[in-house]
Amino acid sequence: MILYDFELSGNCYKIRLMLSLLGQDYEKKSVQVAAGENKAEAFLQLNPKGEVPVLEDSDQIFADSGAILVYLATQYGEQYWLPCDAVSQARIQYWLATASNEIQHGPSAARVIKLFNVPWDYAQAVQITDTLLPQIDQHLSQHHWLAAEHVTIADIAVYPYLALAEEGDINLGVYRHIRQWQKQIEALPNYIALPQATAMA
Amino acid sequence: MILYDFELSGNCYKIRLMLSLLGQDYEKKSVQVAAGENKAEAFLQLNPKGEVPVLEDSDQIFADSGAILVYLATQYGEQYWLPCDAVSQARIQYWLATASNEIQHGPSAARVIKLFNVPWDYAQAVQITDTLLPQIDQHLSQHHWLAAEHVTIADIAVYPYLALAEEGDINLGVYRHIRQWQKQIEALPNYIALPQATAMA
Repeated sequence: MILYDFELSGNCYKIRLMLSLLGQDYEKKSVQVAAGENKAEAFLQLNPKGEVPVLEDSDQIFADSGAILVYLATQYGEQYWLPCDAVSQARIQYWLATASNEIQHGPSAARVIKLFNVPWDYAQAVQITDTLLPQIDQHLSQHHWLAAEHVTIADIAVYPYLALAEEGDINLGVYRHIRQWQKQIEALPNYIALPQATAMA
Repeated sequence: MILYDFELSGNCYKIRLMLSLLGQDYEKKSVQVAAGENKAEAFLQLNPKGEVPVLEDSDQIFADSGAILVYLATQYGEQYWLPCDAVSQARIQYWLATASNEIQHGPSAARVIKLFNVPWDYAQAVQITDTLLPQIDQHLSQHHWLAAEHVTIADIAVYPYLALAEEGDINLGVYRHIRQWQKQIEALPNYIALPQATAMA
């Protein structure tokens, strides 16, 4: 497998984490996002959206971090990370959608604004975050994991940008159920550390 | 099954369409979105995001239109609408993510702004739409359906807000592959008509 990767991207980290949790070897190709390589024609052939991560496996190309999680879980995860029954599938989909929408436009956007000085609307990102985090904290006050009785790709999809939220000046201090759940993920066998923006700056 | 529904919502229409295509009977409960019923405590118990649609089936509650499509396809669709193999699952997920993110913030937002006078950023919605539609049109120039050799929930998730785009002053005229694909969906057995905002205004 080849992962088209950008070290600081939380969406790429999701896939590196999943591959590690699954014990899958892969080759990493760094995409020079700062230089716009992801918007160049060669990369757009891989993903018309011009976004990392992209995964190549057995001559198939997959874009979108949620879609790649679904692929890896189905191909290599023996129905543990993405159980086949209708209720589990729907519960997981709810969180994949949340990762694609509210998390991307909330804590992820806040982090991009603060880390890379992008001229997006920070107040809007904070507002989306402030609406979302109490919902997740409340959910985790009643559930040990987001979508099932055990960890699934729902947790892997939601975890990175919450764990990186401080880099967007988002404080998770009051969300103790989220912080407890983060520790559970960080205790998984073969967990790998988050990207360290400060160390690379 | 009970569908908590708002007639004009494209996300609710997705579910009504899917239920019709699957030949499933259900009870429709209208949520008074204009009166804020979806943000009242009773509804937030069903979906903390305060959004329609919500589906109730066998004492289980499902929120998010993509998650409900996944549920219905898995529970009632005999692996036709959501095939089980890893490649199909990932291809479909790519489009469910697109429906949750770019379509929601693009053509769907443009329509909400024009139809309900909501003070969102119309120029941004148009920009997202203008980036997305050529990608979809290009994809459909090479594929008969979005994610597989036959129609899947990917098509059902993406179709409504493209078909309703004119209500957001988005013109699909130049996107002939999208228009052809829309006709294919509209020719499916048990297809139901789109909500008619103008007729209800």
